[in-house]
Amino acid sequence: MRLYDHPASANCMKARIALRQLAIPYEAVTVDLFKRETRTPEHMARNPDGRVPVLELDSGAMIPESGPILLYLAEGTPLLPDDRLERAVVHQWMFFEQNQIESQLAAARFLVLTGRADRYRELADAMVARGHGSLSSLARGLADDRPFVCGDVYTVADIALYAYVHCAHEAGADAREHGTIGAWLDRVEATPGFENDLAPFPAHAMAS
Amino acid sequence: MRLYDHPASANCMKARIALRQLAIPYEAVTVDLFKRETRTPEHMARNPDGRVPVLELDSGAMIPESGPILLYLAEGTPLLPDDRLERAVVHQWMFFEQNQIESQLAAARFLVLTGRADRYRELADAMVARGHGSLSSLARGLADDRPFVCGDVYTVADIALYAYVHCAHEAGADAREHGTIGAWLDRVEATPGFENDLAPFPAHAMAS
Repeated sequence: MRLYDHPASANCMKARIALRQLAIPYEAVTVDLFKRETRTPEHMARNPDGRVPVLELDSGAMIPESGPILLYLAEGTPLLPDDRLERAVVHQWMFFEQNQIESQLAAARFLVLTGRADRYRELADAMVARGHGSLSSLARGLADDRPFVCGDVYTVADIALYAYVHCAHEAGADAREHGTIGAWLDRVEATPGFENDLAPFPAHAMAS
Repeated sequence: MRLYDHPASANCMKARIALRQLAIPYEAVTVDLFKRETRTPEHMARNPDGRVPVLELDSGAMIPESGPILLYLAEGTPLLPDDRLERAVVHQWMFFEQNQIESQLAAARFLVLTGRADRYRELADAMVARGHGSLSSLARGLADDRPFVCGDVYTVADIALYAYVHCAHEAGADAREHGTIGAWLDRVEATPGFENDLAPFPAHAMAS
């Protein structure tokens, strides 16, 4: 398999974590989103939405989007339950992450880390406010002291949520203010083979 | 089954469309999101993120979030392929919808229809601009004249995308400016048993 990847993208890190924890060999190809290499015709042919990650299978088939990549990789493994209802709970938290966490906190973090937050203050503030609300939702989901977000078992939903929750403080919303989230982050990081390899933003990402 | 629902929510309409097209009987219970009934302890117990739709199964189990509801309902039906790779394509467009379409165009449409867009102009403009970009991505996905977004077969990915794409003009981004999207919307509306029953926003939704 080949992963079209960027070391500083936490969406890409989700795929990297799952590939490593499932011991699947792969080749990483960096597509520099900060140089808009994700928007070239060559990359658009891999993903019409022009983003990373994209997973290329040995057949040449392309799977864009972190969520579908996680679900594809996890099929038939302990990271994704077979039961229809248990699987719906995994989906619940993965869609919540893309709709409520990533769309707000990843975008706000991007503005902060690239030096654009002051220029887009109303936008950044609105996204951080919504992000705070979504972290409270996650804390409610973890409130019965369940070890992982879907219950007793670590799943791809934990990997998906970890990505932008663990670095939410860089956007302006510290997830560890919720004790249940902090304890959950620690448990995720302690799973076998887990490695947070998120790279810092490169110098050329800074607003000019 | 019971659907915690709001007639003016296009996320809820996704569940209603699938339930009708699959001929599954259900009871609809309106939770008035415009009166914050979605944020009560009673509703938070159904969905810790405090939103609709939530599908309650006969067992009492709750499935929040439109995407997981669609995937649950469609399991074992023609609306969701069994093949692992075909399923990844369905997931691709459903996650894209929640991350790139709904998070921007549903939120911008809310600001416009409730009379708040002028008050939050920077925010509304940014969301509409991102929405325009995402509609271009969808048009690229449909560019090879495939009848439906995942290929020849109508799936829950079409239902998911239809919801906020068909009314994107109300947010300020007319999807039908892309001819391929217009033709696809027409094909979705022509599927057997399809009904767009999205209600207008109620008077009490207006900003005071």
